[in-house]
Amino acid sequence: MKINVERGAFLKALSHVQSVVERRNTIPILSNVMLDAAKGQVKLTATDLDIEIVEALPADVLRNGAATAPAHMLYDIVRKLPDGAMVQVELTPGDAARLQVSAGSVRFELACLPKEDFPQMAAGALPHRFRLAANDLKRIIDKTRFAISTEETRFYLNGIYLHAFKDGKTAALRAVATDGHRLARYELELPDGAGDIPGVIVPRKTVAELRRLLDDSDGAIEIALSDTKVQFAFGGIDLTSKLIDGTFPDYQRVIPAGNDKALSLEAKEFGLAVDRVSTISADKTRAVKLMLGKDMVTLSVVNPESGTATEEVGANYAATPIEIGFNAKYLLDVMGQMEGKQVRFLLSDAGSPTVIEDTDDNRTLYVLMPMRV
Amino acid sequence: MKINVERGAFLKALSHVQSVVERRNTIPILSNVMLDAAKGQVKLTATDLDIEIVEALPADVLRNGAATAPAHMLYDIVRKLPDGAMVQVELTPGDAARLQVSAGSVRFELACLPKEDFPQMAAGALPHRFRLAANDLKRIIDKTRFAISTEETRFYLNGIYLHAFKDGKTAALRAVATDGHRLARYELELPDGAGDIPGVIVPRKTVAELRRLLDDSDGAIEIALSDTKVQFAFGGIDLTSKLIDGTFPDYQRVIPAGNDKALSLEAKEFGLAVDRVSTISADKTRAVKLMLGKDMVTLSVVNPESGTATEEVGANYAATPIEIGFNAKYLLDVMGQMEGKQVRFLLSDAGSPTVIEDTDDNRTLYVLMPMRV
Repeated sequence: MKINVERGAFLKALSHVQSVVERRNTIPILSNVMLDAAKGQVKLTATDLDIEIVEALPADVLRNGAATAPAHMLYDIVRKLPDGAMVQVELTPGDAARLQVSAGSVRFELACLPKEDFPQMAAGALPHRFRLAANDLKRIIDKTRFAISTEETRFYLNGIYLHAFKDGKTAALRAVATDGHRLARYELELPDGAGDIPGVIVPRKTVAELRRLLDDSDGAIEIALSDTKVQFAFGGIDLTSKLIDGTFPDYQRVIPAGNDKALSLEAKEFGLAVDRVSTISADKTRAVKLMLGKDMVTLSVVNPESGTATEEVGANYAATPIEIGFNAKYLLDVMGQMEGKQVRFLLSDAGSPTVIEDTDDNRTLYVLMPMRV
Repeated sequence: MKINVERGAFLKALSHVQSVVERRNTIPILSNVMLDAAKGQVKLTATDLDIEIVEALPADVLRNGAATAPAHMLYDIVRKLPDGAMVQVELTPGDAARLQVSAGSVRFELACLPKEDFPQMAAGALPHRFRLAANDLKRIIDKTRFAISTEETRFYLNGIYLHAFKDGKTAALRAVATDGHRLARYELELPDGAGDIPGVIVPRKTVAELRRLLDDSDGAIEIALSDTKVQFAFGGIDLTSKLIDGTFPDYQRVIPAGNDKALSLEAKEFGLAVDRVSTISADKTRAVKLMLGKDMVTLSVVNPESGTATEEVGANYAATPIEIGFNAKYLLDVMGQMEGKQVRFLLSDAGSPTVIEDTDDNRTLYVLMPMRV
């Protein structure tokens, strides 16, 4: 293999694929990126055996061939080469194969591992195919990922549940994440081809990698699915991932429909107040108590060691006064997603799940379990 | 105690003093800041028993008095209060004394500890007094602190050695730091009153706190010294610190005077090349080898696991070709301080200390011990 490739384009592609490579690997080849040069382009592949990212970029191919080299180190090297440089990458064949990377007066020789050992991820048949705008996919992720569980024992909650929802005339593509204490649901119009998709759970790491790659994209994303794999294709990048092999719980059961106490607040002001009063807690996961009275919410936090905090915030509230407690961090996570000025709470009582809605975004719905205070 | 104080000024003073407070304290009162209100001002004091920072700021004092409250928490609270707010701080007396902090509709009650328990640092007599421009003091610190040792067993190297240097007609205030592998020396004209100061070692934490405080200052700094304490006074702030009770080694011995091989390089270009070739090392503390030839330096790094890197950099060099190795991180630290375009190395041989000078800054001198390569 021998290629010349422009440093900027090479760096960008390397930055895309190297991120999936874990810092520590018991299998040495998983630390490497595969470079495969042919037909005027070089294809970079990196994998952690669960996710594979492939990106092709144009290159001046002087000799076809493939090689593998340490992904993070190659990325760091190219990152430090001068802006605008032309990078020459060449595999010196032989028993101790080396990848030569040079530009101007600097030259690196990197230890390689045999390209035959590089694991190939078999995507298999992906019978379901549909398309989403990059911005829609970004929103699906942004609006739900914070609620993904990190408890490994509840592995079936360690991702975003994506499925087609049909109820009478309504048909939607829905994304749901929950950790058992809170739930975030986002829905959008069902795209062509997504009507019969199986419900799938996209793992947290895949969500993170995908979201990072989407930062550089604003076109259409091709999504292909089977029961066990998902593939996202856009802008020369293919991200293929295993899905979580588990059953997502029936989340509809935990979304209350009959909550009749409506509370409206200025989202930003409320978020700042929650942040302020929770300062008195040793950590953010402590409860903040909300006392709902006529057009007024009083927030309070008590920490037996350090003291108390209270703040009053104006609101629209006309139902029976109640007191209810929430995890301050969970409230802040939801407030951080609000796009409109106003947030609406739909409450039942101090022990029942509460619905939170963004008045400027009817695609998203949040449910919070209260805490005893 | 009862005061009204403007949030911005209160926040700034709290940010100055709270930094010295350690996150974990076995003595609870050391987590607190002392507030002492009288005569139209409130004085804030925080200490870790080695360093004490005191700052006074104007306040509307409604009732004289003093109180102590958790420093980091009070700082966080004031930071989260609305910009421009007037903050009311009041001590509610009694057995369970509480500090009330309120602004607008938010109110905090903080647990206090008795003000009588707050440790006072006795500065004692400070017979030596002189004055430095803030910018000179910043440069003293910036040019030397990176070379301070972090080895606790060599406690006498854990700070900057400040002393008056006289040699014939020359008289200078000198700051020196070394960790045994490298040395940084900065000197400036001896200020009035500093001629007879004892040589003192200012501890690393004091250096860090002082440097942080100097960011907000550009006036004159009053410095007062004894054999055991140092005090810096500026802009309403008094920083008093214990000195390291040890003997700084005779650093003059390790600064070679007879190095006759002169090498000049473009500092920035050389720094980038060192950074690039050291990418091949697992960590930055590995050696980079410099091969000095006629008007050319070849840098190289070998990592048996991952490969090799070489780069050629143009230079001015006319002496005998030699090979010498340096710790890449130490070279980068020195290059990071260069103000001029050119850096000058004065070398003897591969086993002897090398002098490095900034061609645009004749007040600073660096010495690096070579590494075997």
